[in-house]
Amino acid sequence: MKNIAVILSGCGVYDGSEIQEAVITLLAIAQQGATYRCFAPNIAQHHVINHLTGEVSEEESRNVLVEAARIGRGDVEDLIELNEKEFDAIIFVGGFGAAKNLSSFALDNDNYSVNEQVLTAAKAFAKVEKPAGFMCIAPALLPLIYPAGVKGTIGKDNATAKLISAKGLTHIDCDVTDVVVDEAHKIVTTPAYMLAESISEAAVGINKLVKYVLAFSK
Amino acid sequence: MKNIAVILSGCGVYDGSEIQEAVITLLAIAQQGATYRCFAPNIAQHHVINHLTGEVSEEESRNVLVEAARIGRGDVEDLIELNEKEFDAIIFVGGFGAAKNLSSFALDNDNYSVNEQVLTAAKAFAKVEKPAGFMCIAPALLPLIYPAGVKGTIGKDNATAKLISAKGLTHIDCDVTDVVVDEAHKIVTTPAYMLAESISEAAVGINKLVKYVLAFSK
Repeated sequence: MKNIAVILSGCGVYDGSEIQEAVITLLAIAQQGATYRCFAPNIAQHHVINHLTGEVSEEESRNVLVEAARIGRGDVEDLIELNEKEFDAIIFVGGFGAAKNLSSFALDNDNYSVNEQVLTAAKAFAKVEKPAGFMCIAPALLPLIYPAGVKGTIGKDNATAKLISAKGLTHIDCDVTDVVVDEAHKIVTTPAYMLAESISEAAVGINKLVKYVLAFSK
Repeated sequence: MKNIAVILSGCGVYDGSEIQEAVITLLAIAQQGATYRCFAPNIAQHHVINHLTGEVSEEESRNVLVEAARIGRGDVEDLIELNEKEFDAIIFVGGFGAAKNLSSFALDNDNYSVNEQVLTAAKAFAKVEKPAGFMCIAPALLPLIYPAGVKGTIGKDNATAKLISAKGLTHIDCDVTDVVVDEAHKIVTTPAYMLAESISEAAVGINKLVKYVLAFSK
């Protein structure tokens, strides 16, 4: 049975992993006959957002790994312990956590960086040519992991695409129900909630991403 | 298009809504051609559990409505504003939040009560014979909403079933992939993570629950 490492960045679209994308990813992996383990870095969240008001909750602090455990029903592991040899592929879920906790993309558009643990984990898969999936805003990580020219999509947002392209991504516009595939690097990307107007729309693209990632890992 | 009120109780299996059950429910509703709005009571959580360690996080307090907003991507409404006339059915998601925030079942097994706002909302649907779905531990609410003898399931846990039966539930053992239907009261229940050993197992029963709830609301 194929085993997929799923990388989370907290629990909630505005300061962590997009919960619906995360659950749909886990469900798609299981429904397509594979299995998964979830990982997240054991670091403080950039901040906590009150998801009802959209405002920063100044007095609160939360830990990315601890909050990610909510999505995984307690089953989430420290990213630093991720051993690429135990997996067939890696998938990065979206949500602002990918751009605030896993990287600084949301905070430092022009000169953003990727968390060292995240970089180490992702590069380990890239090095041995194991497939990888990135959804929503997570493709912002791509040009810092793979060589310039790597192909991917964050949907159809020109301003955002331009910022990532400046780092080396070859951005390809994509519908929410579709994926962009970089055959050379075995990378699959889909816009998910960068474009989705409903949970079922997001699910179509994510199901397709998981299907392509599993096909690459043959 | 049928419109379903989905009742959440926070965000995380140990102190709120079971996240995977909640997302699978929303996805099933959308995939089956209906729409939904999420609601949660604007009350403090009973407590906060660190989902990585399983321990109570004594220094933290969180609000049920604010945390539920994480699952709904900001789109969650105060339960007190729920108007039954705007909906075709109501569905209660599981997780310990149903037994700690929506009711006191987890805290006071022998003589538990249901939060007044929850009771008012649920009884409004019962009174006009609109269908209702309850999954996981949420069927513990049933005997406090419906007349004694109401049928439902929490799976196959005899000790738990006995406690709820003492309040008036006619408990029927049920597999994770199946539902128990109370035709007279238009109630559908499924064990979900009371029994599920994988996310895809939980999804089979939840998809079926949504299907029966929508069929009842014809």
